[in-house]
Amino acid sequence: MSLQLASRTTETLFQPRHVAVSRFPAAARKMAARGEIEVQLEMRHAGTRAVTLRYERVGDPSLPVLFVAGGISANRHVGASDQFSDAGWWQEQSGPGRALDPAQHCILAFDWVGGDGTLDAVIDPVDQATAVVALLDALGIARLSAFIGNSYGAMVGLHLAALHPRRVGRLVAISGFHRAHPYASAWRALQRRAVALGALQCDDSQGVALARQLAMLSYRTADEFDSRFGAAKVVNGRVQVAAEDYLDHCGQQFADRVAAQAFVRLSESIDLQAVDPETVQVPVTVVAVAEDLLVPLADAYDLVQRLRGETRLHVIHSRFGHDAFLKESRAIDGILREALLDIAADADAEALA
Amino acid sequence: MSLQLASRTTETLFQPRHVAVSRFPAAARKMAARGEIEVQLEMRHAGTRAVTLRYERVGDPSLPVLFVAGGISANRHVGASDQFSDAGWWQEQSGPGRALDPAQHCILAFDWVGGDGTLDAVIDPVDQATAVVALLDALGIARLSAFIGNSYGAMVGLHLAALHPRRVGRLVAISGFHRAHPYASAWRALQRRAVALGALQCDDSQGVALARQLAMLSYRTADEFDSRFGAAKVVNGRVQVAAEDYLDHCGQQFADRVAAQAFVRLSESIDLQAVDPETVQVPVTVVAVAEDLLVPLADAYDLVQRLRGETRLHVIHSRFGHDAFLKESRAIDGILREALLDIAADADAEALA
Repeated sequence: MSLQLASRTTETLFQPRHVAVSRFPAAARKMAARGEIEVQLEMRHAGTRAVTLRYERVGDPSLPVLFVAGGISANRHVGASDQFSDAGWWQEQSGPGRALDPAQHCILAFDWVGGDGTLDAVIDPVDQATAVVALLDALGIARLSAFIGNSYGAMVGLHLAALHPRRVGRLVAISGFHRAHPYASAWRALQRRAVALGALQCDDSQGVALARQLAMLSYRTADEFDSRFGAAKVVNGRVQVAAEDYLDHCGQQFADRVAAQAFVRLSESIDLQAVDPETVQVPVTVVAVAEDLLVPLADAYDLVQRLRGETRLHVIHSRFGHDAFLKESRAIDGILREALLDIAADADAEALA
Repeated sequence: MSLQLASRTTETLFQPRHVAVSRFPAAARKMAARGEIEVQLEMRHAGTRAVTLRYERVGDPSLPVLFVAGGISANRHVGASDQFSDAGWWQEQSGPGRALDPAQHCILAFDWVGGDGTLDAVIDPVDQATAVVALLDALGIARLSAFIGNSYGAMVGLHLAALHPRRVGRLVAISGFHRAHPYASAWRALQRRAVALGALQCDDSQGVALARQLAMLSYRTADEFDSRFGAAKVVNGRVQVAAEDYLDHCGQQFADRVAAQAFVRLSESIDLQAVDPETVQVPVTVVAVAEDLLVPLADAYDLVQRLRGETRLHVIHSRFGHDAFLKESRAIDGILREALLDIAADADAEALA
């Protein structure tokens, strides 16, 4: 994997580590910043492509850096800050006093390669790990204290840990493991077919909306639907089930913000996940949700058994299934705090060494 | 519910019970027969409609009559006979020496109301029970020894048992209970949306095929897919998951034989299932599959607790999930034989009374 940085690097507030942090006033250093870099990315299946990496960081860059990654529909905006005050996709875990506290850590995240819908190519999860390294190089970050990944983000994190062990101190892999389960892959393949069927109308949004609705069923559980929705009704000569309004909302909201090609290429990417756990030697905290329909507990056990570094396993129960990382805020908070204590201990051990 | 028989009744081989069975030679009596009757069906949501009921019976009509019903894509052809030698949808359970042995019973089945795709109306499961009674009336069958229903067929059987307890001696309800689960309903609603999206192309088959593929995921389980399918591949710049060929086959085969409207109206019908179990007083054998994604075990427990007649519960484990009634031939055989022994005991008790 060769990486070539293009000249345009637009961030103004971020401080690469090798520059004295005192050059900026403390207030500025603590501010959040966004930037983008252009790289020539050597991709596993698609040759070398020019891609733009768009990142956001929150917190003083001299603090331990945590790279935070979510599912395929997540992005660089993890949590709100003074500069970027919209709620982030992991708002519950982010901010003063939360597990991802910018007073304690520098939180770094980016938009997935392919996330803007302009890349019409097969994207392997390893390509995202390559892009993470490219970003770290551009920002002068020698080593992440931890990579915290959820779902697809956890898959990418495993590649990063396997291939670039010196760049990451610890991996937290939540609801994403070393392989794509064949059943989950079939479910995603049908979502992509819904997009293809919609595209035949020259109206992507209907297909993307249906794909998202199908995905929602895989992200949640029967118990959650049972607790929220009642019996079907007959409306204007048709049967309307109780969840339809909710699913309509989910589908439309997603179709309004995600391009069909971004969805399809990142959905495909999940299905290419293949990491040999024996190649991972950095410490890993694995978090599995017993009710997850996409990422079964058995795969977490298989992963934990085969990882070669220090390994911790947390199994949580949630009627939100695969979406537990977004919904079980308290359980996830506890797990993140424990993992971050380990990171602090790692740092102390390094300082003593 | 009023029923009016039309004049056209085309069966020639079937012997209504009140006619001396000796009028036909024994060989003819044991033969299978198909016929159809036209009825004015008073439907719960759609007024009175003229519908054609197409039935098949196998075995001597003087033997105890078993009405056998499957899921929404099943039909009147349960098992092969000399006359109709194609494999039936429940072939494994049908034929000499099998649980549904035409030497021991007369096996009766029909095509679902709406199954031919000509009825553009909301079909309640209770409408099917009304149609069953219309068929029994037309054929001069006072009472079924048992109604054996799978999936949608079990839902219909519960209505029959609740509303017409004198017409059915025992109900065997396999993988279909007193309500549609809200999660399963959401899954079906999205299948109907796939059909609607396909219909926008004026090419129903793509939408119906996608709907069937989605349904297959709900009928089976993650474990079954894991045992059959491996890793995804990159083919011509796209990701192809291992189950896609299989799903293509399932979708195309279904789209070739089922009209979009038949699928949509019967799929809707499942979602209207609502039987108060306290109104069922006939003996019921409930069969639940622990791994069923559509009809959860908890609903079987709720049903069994609330039924008012003699009740038996069998819980089986199957990686085929909802499709266990089609795939777990040995377990289903044992359950059917036990239920049929109960039927024989019921008959003996009646004879002694």
